[in-house]
Amino acid sequence: MRAKKDRLSRRDFIKLGAGASALLAMPALAAETPGEARPNLVLIVSDDHGRGDLGCYGNPLIQTPNLDALAAEGVRFTQAFCTTASCSASRSVILSGLYNHANGQYGHQHAYHHFSSFDTVKSLPVLLSAAGYRTARIGKYHVAPDEVYKFDVALRGNSRSPVQMADNCQSFVAPDDKQPFFLYFCTSDPHRGGGKAEDLPHQPNRFGNRSQGYPGIKEIEYDPNDVTVPDYLPDIPECRAELAQYYQSVSRVDQGVGRLVEILKATGTYDNTVVIYISDNGIPFPGAKTTAYEPGLNLPCIVRTPGQETRGIACDALVNYADLTPTILDFAQATPSNYLFHGRSFKSVLESEHPQGWDTTYASHTFHEITMYYPMRVVRGRRFKLIWNLAHGLDYPFASDLWASPTWQATLRRKRRLYGKRTVEAYLHRPEFELYDLQEDPDEVCNLADDLKHQATLKEMKTQLKAFQKRTQDPWIVKWDYE
Amino acid sequence: MRAKKDRLSRRDFIKLGAGASALLAMPALAAETPGEARPNLVLIVSDDHGRGDLGCYGNPLIQTPNLDALAAEGVRFTQAFCTTASCSASRSVILSGLYNHANGQYGHQHAYHHFSSFDTVKSLPVLLSAAGYRTARIGKYHVAPDEVYKFDVALRGNSRSPVQMADNCQSFVAPDDKQPFFLYFCTSDPHRGGGKAEDLPHQPNRFGNRSQGYPGIKEIEYDPNDVTVPDYLPDIPECRAELAQYYQSVSRVDQGVGRLVEILKATGTYDNTVVIYISDNGIPFPGAKTTAYEPGLNLPCIVRTPGQETRGIACDALVNYADLTPTILDFAQATPSNYLFHGRSFKSVLESEHPQGWDTTYASHTFHEITMYYPMRVVRGRRFKLIWNLAHGLDYPFASDLWASPTWQATLRRKRRLYGKRTVEAYLHRPEFELYDLQEDPDEVCNLADDLKHQATLKEMKTQLKAFQKRTQDPWIVKWDYE
Repeated sequence: MRAKKDRLSRRDFIKLGAGASALLAMPALAAETPGEARPNLVLIVSDDHGRGDLGCYGNPLIQTPNLDALAAEGVRFTQAFCTTASCSASRSVILSGLYNHANGQYGHQHAYHHFSSFDTVKSLPVLLSAAGYRTARIGKYHVAPDEVYKFDVALRGNSRSPVQMADNCQSFVAPDDKQPFFLYFCTSDPHRGGGKAEDLPHQPNRFGNRSQGYPGIKEIEYDPNDVTVPDYLPDIPECRAELAQYYQSVSRVDQGVGRLVEILKATGTYDNTVVIYISDNGIPFPGAKTTAYEPGLNLPCIVRTPGQETRGIACDALVNYADLTPTILDFAQATPSNYLFHGRSFKSVLESEHPQGWDTTYASHTFHEITMYYPMRVVRGRRFKLIWNLAHGLDYPFASDLWASPTWQATLRRKRRLYGKRTVEAYLHRPEFELYDLQEDPDEVCNLADDLKHQATLKEMKTQLKAFQKRTQDPWIVKWDYE
Repeated sequence: MRAKKDRLSRRDFIKLGAGASALLAMPALAAETPGEARPNLVLIVSDDHGRGDLGCYGNPLIQTPNLDALAAEGVRFTQAFCTTASCSASRSVILSGLYNHANGQYGHQHAYHHFSSFDTVKSLPVLLSAAGYRTARIGKYHVAPDEVYKFDVALRGNSRSPVQMADNCQSFVAPDDKQPFFLYFCTSDPHRGGGKAEDLPHQPNRFGNRSQGYPGIKEIEYDPNDVTVPDYLPDIPECRAELAQYYQSVSRVDQGVGRLVEILKATGTYDNTVVIYISDNGIPFPGAKTTAYEPGLNLPCIVRTPGQETRGIACDALVNYADLTPTILDFAQATPSNYLFHGRSFKSVLESEHPQGWDTTYASHTFHEITMYYPMRVVRGRRFKLIWNLAHGLDYPFASDLWASPTWQATLRRKRRLYGKRTVEAYLHRPEFELYDLQEDPDEVCNLADDLKHQATLKEMKTQLKAFQKRTQDPWIVKWDYE
């Protein structure tokens, strides 16, 4: 269901706060009477896991047998997108069904960044709880305030220890005749963390890997020589060393997912449980995370439902994370009748490989860290993609962990001209508009915004972008008119 | 009392949130036993009132007899500065004694801007309440969260109706043998508001003026021909028309102050009451409010205390709004022994015209509206002033009300080269560093940052600025090292 309000005057806009409140404060729920037993719901969100780094998405080396098995039993989306490639903000979109320019979580929640969502936002756990679900979260949270993103219970567990996390969910996922459950399971793997591996060549970041391992995890080590360096990263030893560490971290996530499925099966709830696996944003390297380029936004999304008849397919619908809350509520038969999400349920397309009407998606990024102001608004069709860099006058800002990464520091130290297929210069200094033909130029290096042949496309996509901003009450829409 | 921590490593910095919390979470109070009766405290904060627009600060036309009387009985600071020329953020500094880059209120609190202070901040009303004061606020608030900036009571009253506001304080300021009081009295005058005066030439903004007037107010109308157009504004009919409206609004504030003093006298509390009058930031015109130029920062500050022996003087100490909370707590003998403010009490200099050791001040601005990212850090001595424009690659962003102002729109429409003494171009596009010799160039139009003769000054002031940022835990300090 999309917001009905297509036009937003300048004056309305000034009053956005009040307007948004009125919109969002509508009575929340008229929960439908379930016509059939409602499924349990498990939403697994890993941290910084790129779409290319799973066996089922074509990576020849990385070992993700449990995620691959999930995909074989379900549907794997090839064109699923977060709407902002930044952990905290992306999670707010996942849990609210609203672009984060409208839910108030403009950037990181934690520490001095200090962003949070409006009190008026109705989140997925709150709506499910109101509809009779038991709700629990475990692991990374990273949204605020608590009251808005309220779960019945926060289960304990080291978010770097996914098998242990799964074990700790055991009693929560045990069958309950009265109430189905919603489990929000969030690992901190494969985010950067744990400092430099001083003992290894090129001292890569550890990505949470540690010598003593984690309970229940069989650590899988990768040889830097064997990893696949994607086109958007530089094929240098530092990057290979880091990718090997990152892969190891991903394989831990996979084992956590495996253990969780095992527990669901053992408790007898798997056959009535929807399991969704996504990552919050792209991989934690410059060129992916925090950007609006494909490696930042286009992510793994695996959905396995009890009832589906067609399994193991890939679906190329363009879905995004604003669709997740509406979709999950749809599974729960808990779609509120009088509350507007920006996204829409994709439940109906789970068994189609090429569904009609899912050909355009949007993204909206504003901050990563509070010091990283770099608003970007994106419209992406099947072929063309337009990025509007509102603060194009600034150098592209770096997340502190990406800046410090051996991969980036080696790039700077060696004064390399290229970073992946893009020049370092182009990465750092971006034009106001970037228009790419993804069919001809999947690496997004040839900007067509100034190309005379593409002015009609540019104009049309600008119009689409503006309409999107109006529809979703984007405060930054003012930047079309004045700075 | 200044923060002791002079050095902040990169690593400390990443942990700033936690660090700040630890710092701020120290046990709040070891209230000293009062050695004498503690005074009542009245802090009056008007909205967008510039330093030039009071009789006692030299304006030949504007009628502010009550503020002038207060100055005649007290001390008038000629070099008092807000630390950010933006209402919400400035108020957070006034009430916390911390630069807003460290208290979390990075920009506007209300509506979709959605900034607020950290839960760990100990504010003036909370500390005074803990020290036994009764606390009340009336009028504009504009900070959050409530728990941090908690007053015992929020008195009611239209913040555009200052005489009525004063009347509504009557019972609160009545004498109480047991508890002295703290009254925080904030008008919305002379902020822009009320739309365009369609009936007047050049359709100036109304600045809250309305045909039916306000209770107890004798509206004073000004002839646009008679106003003084300061050097930083354009002498065009639209600006004159707007200044006349603004003056009228200021005269309402003055009458509210007069009525409040009258009530204090009538209730017999005036003789034991400290009264402070300030404005939150400079006048609501491009060139002042939201900028780091003198008209944005250098503001009226009048302090009248019961005990002072020297009255009616002007003091040229460089004080700023981070000093207000420490100063007021000093009056209340309620300075916490284990809590660090960024500012320091200026109580000891109230009777000196030229006190020693008050020769440098700082400012730190980051946002006005959430869409207006334009961090500036400023060090200002008696002669030189350095502004670091961190986001100098951006056009200077406009507050929506300043952008829409007839003064600015006329400037654009007529394609005027100059705005005040500055070029429009220089106003819109700023260099990374601006260094001014305020003695030679009080209008700040001749940037010396690239002048070879001033490189030593530039270097020294950059060092001062960095030290300030370290000392006050400024997240934007990272921008010295990387974007």
